[in-house]
Amino acid sequence: MQLQYYLELAGTLVFAISGALAIRERDHDLFGAGFTGFITAIGGGTLRDILLDSYPLVWIGDIYFLYAIFFGLLLAFLLPNYLSQLRKTFFLFDTLGIAFFTILGVEKSLSLGVSPEIAAIMGMFSAVMGGVIRDTLTNETPVLFRKEIYASACLAGAILYLILNYFEVARELNMLISISLVIALRLLSVKYKLSLPRLG
Amino acid sequence: MQLQYYLELAGTLVFAISGALAIRERDHDLFGAGFTGFITAIGGGTLRDILLDSYPLVWIGDIYFLYAIFFGLLLAFLLPNYLSQLRKTFFLFDTLGIAFFTILGVEKSLSLGVSPEIAAIMGMFSAVMGGVIRDTLTNETPVLFRKEIYASACLAGAILYLILNYFEVARELNMLISISLVIALRLLSVKYKLSLPRLG
Amino acid sequence: MQLQYYLELAGTLVFAISGALAIRERDHDLFGAGFTGFITAIGGGTLRDILLDSYPLVWIGDIYFLYAIFFGLLLAFLLPNYLSQLRKTFFLFDTLGIAFFTILGVEKSLSLGVSPEIAAIMGMFSAVMGGVIRDTLTNETPVLFRKEIYASACLAGAILYLILNYFEVARELNMLISISLVIALRLLSVKYKLSLPRLG
Repeated sequence: MQLQYYLELAGTLVFAISGALAIRERDHDLFGAGFTGFITAIGGGTLRDILLDSYPLVWIGDIYFLYAIFFGLLLAFLLPNYLSQLRKTFFLFDTLGIAFFTILGVEKSLSLGVSPEIAAIMGMFSAVMGGVIRDTLTNETPVLFRKEIYASACLAGAILYLILNYFEVARELNMLISISLVIALRLLSVKYKLSLPRLG
Repeated sequence: MQLQYYLELAGTLVFAISGALAIRERDHDLFGAGFTGFITAIGGGTLRDILLDSYPLVWIGDIYFLYAIFFGLLLAFLLPNYLSQLRKTFFLFDTLGIAFFTILGVEKSLSLGVSPEIAAIMGMFSAVMGGVIRDTLTNETPVLFRKEIYASACLAGAILYLILNYFEVARELNMLISISLVIALRLLSVKYKLSLPRLG
Repeated sequence: MQLQYYLELAGTLVFAISGALAIRERDHDLFGAGFTGFITAIGGGTLRDILLDSYPLVWIGDIYFLYAIFFGLLLAFLLPNYLSQLRKTFFLFDTLGIAFFTILGVEKSLSLGVSPEIAAIMGMFSAVMGGVIRDTLTNETPVLFRKEIYASACLAGAILYLILNYFEVARELNMLISISLVIALRLLSVKYKLSLPRLG
């Protein structure tokens, strides 16, 4: 559990950096960048916990999450150009992040007693809604509607986790497999520009 | 009460379809369409219940609401062209839906002990905020600011229900009258292109 | 405490007016104007209380807040041109309002037992998120990203309040100093067109 906790903090930090840097091209000041980094980092988990009535919210109950965000924002402020050059690294981190947060979101939802169907939706929300809220606030088309295969990769990983969980696959193995599926779907979709069919 | 429950499920299904199809003209894939259908179907009631601290949320506590949404999305995915031709039918369904959800929202709010003024607002929120959230996420001008008389018809119906309720009109009769008012206002405003005056 | 309560009602009324008038230039009807006024007035405090699980929400538990909003909207509807000429007056009122709501938000958050860091964020949210939600719904760039120094002035005031509070400065004196800081920062930034540096 210790490892998982540190991974969560690291994921939160990465989301804060990528959220703050996402704003760079636009005419926003440091505060705006910090605000969007903050929203990106906490948005998904916060929405999940409000929908499930799970209080206190993670970042309100545990100050280390706030510190992780502040540290991420500080890095983004001090090294914006350096970090922006690490585009591929960030893409990788973001992919790891959404995969990891999806499965954690599923597990938390299950532990709160909801049905598997709801847990799958909540897992996906945990991973992607921070970015959606950020994009909505900044008047951009939400990432959900833009990217090749993004939220749907999370949903697929969440469903796989729930199926393997139903068949009592050991938790660590299940996490490994499900997270790998999200990562694989995301990487392949970007590499081969795959996308889901459109309506009609 | 059985009838009311099935009507709620049917209304949820219709909202999911209309939400998914609303996205058609735009460059969104199946997942984006499903996501907007989902948000449209649950958004209003979810906002109402969060504001009133009423948990579990309806669609989280009762899996049949999720099934109604999935079924609606499936229909939208399989028959998009057919359903889109049913424009007038959908307009009618949507009108029935917002009228019905308004009054249900008022009743639920009253049963949670809030004042009539708050219940009127919550009834209107139940009906229209799903569409508002959908439009905000997809960067469209929310339906609230576009349509001839939309949310204000819901508010009028909610207020009428509360007045008749105060004078102890029987519930079924009251629902019938209030729902009819919402429908009449909406249909007349579209037919005769009526709109509220603008400010100043 | 009586004075503070009346100030809160007055602040809510002013926010409702400025929210309703903010929509004037656009093609919205009276209902749209009323809706945005309402959202502006309640948005920040509502978000704060949902995040902190503090129920009932202020405007749901105390009908006088709703009356203050209705009265503000009525004024905006009856005297739009007159009120719009009072631009400078409103700018001043808005500045007073965000300063006051920031400190009240900090105090409420502290009283709910959160850490000072969270209280600072919640104070700032109380003051500015109503406007952010309003701007998001109406597809404008949120005030947060536009104005010279707006939310960051609130954050600075919140932090000052918490520091003085830590050193046990008397509450009334502390409020006076912290509110003055927010007002001074805001006025100076507008007068001298100051802004925070941009990223990178």
